[in-house]
Amino acid sequence: MTGRVYLIGAGPGAPDLLTLRAAEILRRADVVFYDSLVHSGTLALAAHAEKVPVGKRSGRRSTAQKFINKRLIDAARAHAVVVRLKGGDPALFGRAQEEIDALRGAGVEFEIVPGVTAASAAAAELGISLTRRGLSRQVVFVTPRAAEGERGNDWAASVLAADTAVLYMGAGLAQTIAAELVGRGKPPATPVALVENASLAERRVLLGTLADLPALAQQGGGGPAVLVFGGVLKAALDRRGPALADAVENFLKRA
Amino acid sequence: MTGRVYLIGAGPGAPDLLTLRAAEILRRADVVFYDSLVHSGTLALAAHAEKVPVGKRSGRRSTAQKFINKRLIDAARAHAVVVRLKGGDPALFGRAQEEIDALRGAGVEFEIVPGVTAASAAAAELGISLTRRGLSRQVVFVTPRAAEGERGNDWAASVLAADTAVLYMGAGLAQTIAAELVGRGKPPATPVALVENASLAERRVLLGTLADLPALAQQGGGGPAVLVFGGVLKAALDRRGPALADAVENFLKRA
Repeated sequence: MTGRVYLIGAGPGAPDLLTLRAAEILRRADVVFYDSLVHSGTLALAAHAEKVPVGKRSGRRSTAQKFINKRLIDAARAHAVVVRLKGGDPALFGRAQEEIDALRGAGVEFEIVPGVTAASAAAAELGISLTRRGLSRQVVFVTPRAAEGERGNDWAASVLAADTAVLYMGAGLAQTIAAELVGRGKPPATPVALVENASLAERRVLLGTLADLPALAQQGGGGPAVLVFGGVLKAALDRRGPALADAVENFLKRA
Repeated sequence: MTGRVYLIGAGPGAPDLLTLRAAEILRRADVVFYDSLVHSGTLALAAHAEKVPVGKRSGRRSTAQKFINKRLIDAARAHAVVVRLKGGDPALFGRAQEEIDALRGAGVEFEIVPGVTAASAAAAELGISLTRRGLSRQVVFVTPRAAEGERGNDWAASVLAADTAVLYMGAGLAQTIAAELVGRGKPPATPVALVENASLAERRVLLGTLADLPALAQQGGGGPAVLVFGGVLKAALDRRGPALADAVENFLKRA
């Protein structure tokens, strides 16, 4: 008899952006394996659980992942309620599939509890919607990162094809991103936002255009961040002074 | 002195997929304006509030939206805590920007509380991640719908450019979607899922390929649904019999 593994989205950062369901499962958890970005206030809800950090910061990612998979399976054979707590939503850039495959292969029951993803929290910080009738009917969530040996990831093509784009794990690649997008025809006047530590007290919102992106990224503090691109940012930029708003207005007229 | 309007994401359907923050605000709400898809169990949390349905089902959408905007502003002038409760996440296909613009124009303070979007709940039902190293680094959320007189929405281009696509409000347009995507070169063997009523007891998951999409959609019950496209569905299809899994395997080899 084995227990069940709950792959839970911890949300974007603030402990109260966890779902009621996730909080309830954490309260009765026996073991919690958590990523490095999970807030201590969220972990505290798992009052009776053994808490195991499995944050992947080293370069040896695939070894670490296999180790996590094994620990999840072992835990499910020893406990009733095993939680794998991931930042954001497990289905978006959380490497959940590798764990799901391992659990399924070992015959361990699992359940995914969806969470609030970083893009939604970034939009809330910006005070905007990522979609807007007449302006944006498509939002792409994308990462410019690729694992070693990974087949082609044409992240730029998907950014160019969508009205709005949110880049995950991209703030450290700002120079490359700006050069690639401008080189492939994205207007340098495209509005851009860098939203760091969304939903946390240390939140930071930097606004500009694609041409400014490398400079914007240098002002960031290195916390977890997303980059947002597109005309929907106009509503946020309007509050930052007329010069920037005019630049965006011109961008929208040409688009 | 005016109150504050909270634009709150109610999540995909199940009341316990609401965030802790949203639940806390609902408990002290004076008025709640809610969409037709919000669950009665979620509304019940707003024990002391006047509850006003503002579901938009008529054809006269823009009139209705102006009316909602006005009611939000009036309510903020009479009450401290005004909630605008939307299905999913307010930043994704919730028409939040029109309300934000109206509130800002009237000088009413507002705050966005992000929620779990339907795509995340659909992935949880499917037991898969929407991203996967080596297979999907881009997920586009898109609607094929456009308002009357709206400028071009090339939804198909964004679907073609991204590894994974989630279509909102598209189940009723399955025939058109399949014809357009196949006509523009998307392989008919592309794995497709229709997820209806994600997170609710009436949930339904239908799996197939792009060629099957019109037939799949006819099996749907007409509830709120998303369509998911892409190789990440292989993990869900594998459980549905070898014939379908083989078709998908071939698709992935060619891709």
